[in-house]
Amino acid sequence: MQKRNATVAVIGAGDYIGGEIAKKFAAEGFTVFAGRRNGAKLEPLVKEIEQAGGEIHARSLDARKEEEVVAFLQDADKHAPLDVCIFNIGANVNFPILDTTERVFRKVWEMACYSGFLAGREAARLMVPRGQGNIFFTGATASLRGGAGYAAFASAKFGLRAVAQAMARELGPKNIHVAHLIIDSGVDTEWVRQRRLEALGPTALDNPDLLMPPSSVASSYWQLYQQPRSAWTFELEIRPFGEKW
Amino acid sequence: MQKRNATVAVIGAGDYIGGEIAKKFAAEGFTVFAGRRNGAKLEPLVKEIEQAGGEIHARSLDARKEEEVVAFLQDADKHAPLDVCIFNIGANVNFPILDTTERVFRKVWEMACYSGFLAGREAARLMVPRGQGNIFFTGATASLRGGAGYAAFASAKFGLRAVAQAMARELGPKNIHVAHLIIDSGVDTEWVRQRRLEALGPTALDNPDLLMPPSSVASSYWQLYQQPRSAWTFELEIRPFGEKW
Amino acid sequence: MQKRNATVAVIGAGDYIGGEIAKKFAAEGFTVFAGRRNGAKLEPLVKEIEQAGGEIHARSLDARKEEEVVAFLQDADKHAPLDVCIFNIGANVNFPILDTTERVFRKVWEMACYSGFLAGREAARLMVPRGQGNIFFTGATASLRGGAGYAAFASAKFGLRAVAQAMARELGPKNIHVAHLIIDSGVDTEWVRQRRLEALGPTALDNPDLLMPPSSVASSYWQLYQQPRSAWTFELEIRPFGEKW
Amino acid sequence: MQKRNATVAVIGAGDYIGGEIAKKFAAEGFTVFAGRRNGAKLEPLVKEIEQAGGEIHARSLDARKEEEVVAFLQDADKHAPLDVCIFNIGANVNFPILDTTERVFRKVWEMACYSGFLAGREAARLMVPRGQGNIFFTGATASLRGGAGYAAFASAKFGLRAVAQAMARELGPKNIHVAHLIIDSGVDTEWVRQRRLEALGPTALDNPDLLMPPSSVASSYWQLYQQPRSAWTFELEIRPFGEKW
Repeated sequence: MQKRNATVAVIGAGDYIGGEIAKKFAAEGFTVFAGRRNGAKLEPLVKEIEQAGGEIHARSLDARKEEEVVAFLQDADKHAPLDVCIFNIGANVNFPILDTTERVFRKVWEMACYSGFLAGREAARLMVPRGQGNIFFTGATASLRGGAGYAAFASAKFGLRAVAQAMARELGPKNIHVAHLIIDSGVDTEWVRQRRLEALGPTALDNPDLLMPPSSVASSYWQLYQQPRSAWTFELEIRPFGEKW
Repeated sequence: MQKRNATVAVIGAGDYIGGEIAKKFAAEGFTVFAGRRNGAKLEPLVKEIEQAGGEIHARSLDARKEEEVVAFLQDADKHAPLDVCIFNIGANVNFPILDTTERVFRKVWEMACYSGFLAGREAARLMVPRGQGNIFFTGATASLRGGAGYAAFASAKFGLRAVAQAMARELGPKNIHVAHLIIDSGVDTEWVRQRRLEALGPTALDNPDLLMPPSSVASSYWQLYQQPRSAWTFELEIRPFGEKW
Repeated sequence: MQKRNATVAVIGAGDYIGGEIAKKFAAEGFTVFAGRRNGAKLEPLVKEIEQAGGEIHARSLDARKEEEVVAFLQDADKHAPLDVCIFNIGANVNFPILDTTERVFRKVWEMACYSGFLAGREAARLMVPRGQGNIFFTGATASLRGGAGYAAFASAKFGLRAVAQAMARELGPKNIHVAHLIIDSGVDTEWVRQRRLEALGPTALDNPDLLMPPSSVASSYWQLYQQPRSAWTFELEIRPFGEKW
Repeated sequence: MQKRNATVAVIGAGDYIGGEIAKKFAAEGFTVFAGRRNGAKLEPLVKEIEQAGGEIHARSLDARKEEEVVAFLQDADKHAPLDVCIFNIGANVNFPILDTTERVFRKVWEMACYSGFLAGREAARLMVPRGQGNIFFTGATASLRGGAGYAAFASAKFGLRAVAQAMARELGPKNIHVAHLIIDSGVDTEWVRQRRLEALGPTALDNPDLLMPPSSVASSYWQLYQQPRSAWTFELEIRPFGEKW
């Protein structure tokens, strides 16, 4: 592995997607700064990346707190120039509109939209002076469609997409690639498997081709990173070959 | 004018769009409940509607406060069944992303999205048991497009649109018409005229056909209200005939 | 009924939607020019409109033939100024892509797209010099979504929508209202009922609220016609309240 | 270069985009079958690819003729299994709607939509029995937007997109990757440069970053080809970093 003088920040470095993104960029020579609510849970990821010869710094991070986001990204940037910032926090909940409390509505927004704004803006503040950088956001089907029961979640995801769009239009000409990756399927995580089993019964997992491996999401981000600036994509929608859409 | 046993609530009953909507529905025999931040400013509207033989109740309302929204709509509904709820609060601001403070981002969301969620949900709680009603939201170009400088505003408007969509899918089958009206142009208000003059110079207002009279917005809402349930529209986009799009 | 000095041309004046549109505009005082492949089949419509005191001229029309379309619209326009032209020809077919012959693909396009271009352009040629007019196209779910088995039909409907959009952008500033009405559901015709029964079995028609009465489509066109030019809609999507989307 | 037992067919192998795609896939070890109206014009491309050690077969091809398309693709497939089919024929014209002749409308459709249907269907016929393959279509801004003056061109491009969508939904589950690449900018060709100079004057080419090098389009197709089937993209929109959108 060729070490790069560049940092990738992964905000929302969970056990699945975020972790795979971290591993991919670490394997490509980036120093990884990984943040999640409970930083202690990052230990297995740290071990795996370090054993593979990569460099990772794990942090506890409440991405809804401006000062924490600022500190996290500045810390990363001091280590080596922040080249990529990936915002990967979801908050998938489903409630009938009548049962959606103001507390839930607000909290989902803070997690999935507001903290994305903070991360994007702070990354931009570090990247704009250098005239270079990449800011990627993870979207979902709910970024494009407000389905029944998804008022809170879709509202936050729509809102995050607008932030990404506005930033892409504003920062593209400044040589900063802002992209929004829409994952149109369940990702193969324990949580998704459990929900499918509950909803669809024991045959729910018979067709593994309907779940997307987190490593495929990571590859997609890597493809976005590799695009030459003469042909940038703002929005990339991915789904497994067998998925209905 | 034939008086109806029905109330329309207009949240964001400003001097322009909201006021015209109030007048239109009042003229059609509805009792109007009009709310805006400073209820005292509703006095001219009250006078105009009452002189025309209509009925209107003006209220000071901070639509970001759950308890105020609940009280406002319940009050309206006690008067006569709440048949229509119109959410019409905007918060159009433009800031470069680097200069968008967390305070602005949050406030714009609270005004233009969160309070729309509160209004929609509370109206639904009153309408669902009766199996009938109409909930209309005012959108803008920024509901569909995150332009440069519009991270905060577009994020809130995208989010409001998601709320409307999720509600439409959930409540349509319960006989409640949820619609989202997108105004793709400047509306002919003092504020818009001033901005155009500043941006484009003294010729900015030479073509009156590029501004939309608030009464046209009111007519559009009236058309939505008149649609039979066998042919409901969720999203209605309107623009003046001379507008570029 | 107040007679108007104005003509509406309905191209694709079938037994259902087109017929209802003709009746609605006739009832509003327009002289109707109705064209369909086999003009003889228009007899019941002629009778109904005339008995109601309206005026209608029925014509056999192959809308894929430029000279026939030209003659039909000029004929209408000589009678009284052509104020509204409605293009309402569908060609809903479903074939797996491998079984879609070049003959089917071409024919569906000629019926549902090419003839719409001819009608729109010819109507525009009559309207532009007068600086006034309305050109409305009937769309479908397939105008927005290329579903499995719909390569031919969706391709034609997408193509028709593009014609409508380009015309709207070009002719709007010339005071000609071009609109595209998307019907997102089955319309309540004999043919649709039959298909539902075949596909879903005897309970398919238990819920009448899932089919749209042709008269509701006609009302929607009437609403489009009534819009003031300060608030025109280009695209109007309608569906029954119980429809899933 | 590692030779593969696989063929790529490029329909519309012009001097720019199509030629670059051919070179890229040849460099990756594919046997190239290149078709364009006048096959003799492919000579420089043939020379370049062969000198680089690649394999290419050049053919004169009128892609609007079913029998020619069938023969071209079967020929390619006999050589080595047809793994990728790329349809890359444009027909960008701009006419006011009133001046768009039926001949132009039909011809643009035949070139940009109908021939794409033929190519896609025939490729599918060869790929479906093997349960594997890739069918990629080149789109443009006009695939999504019917601008003033683009009734003919946008209608054809909308129609092609519908074909691609319907095929993607139908063939994805059969392990065939159908994708639609939207190029939202001018590609750096002689023709585009000339048009920009005419439209914008001598400074039109001062900013080279607003034109997309054909090789970047080729890279984008290569990225699509490399996607694992667990994370396929149907639609990829690309634009240079400085492009307004």
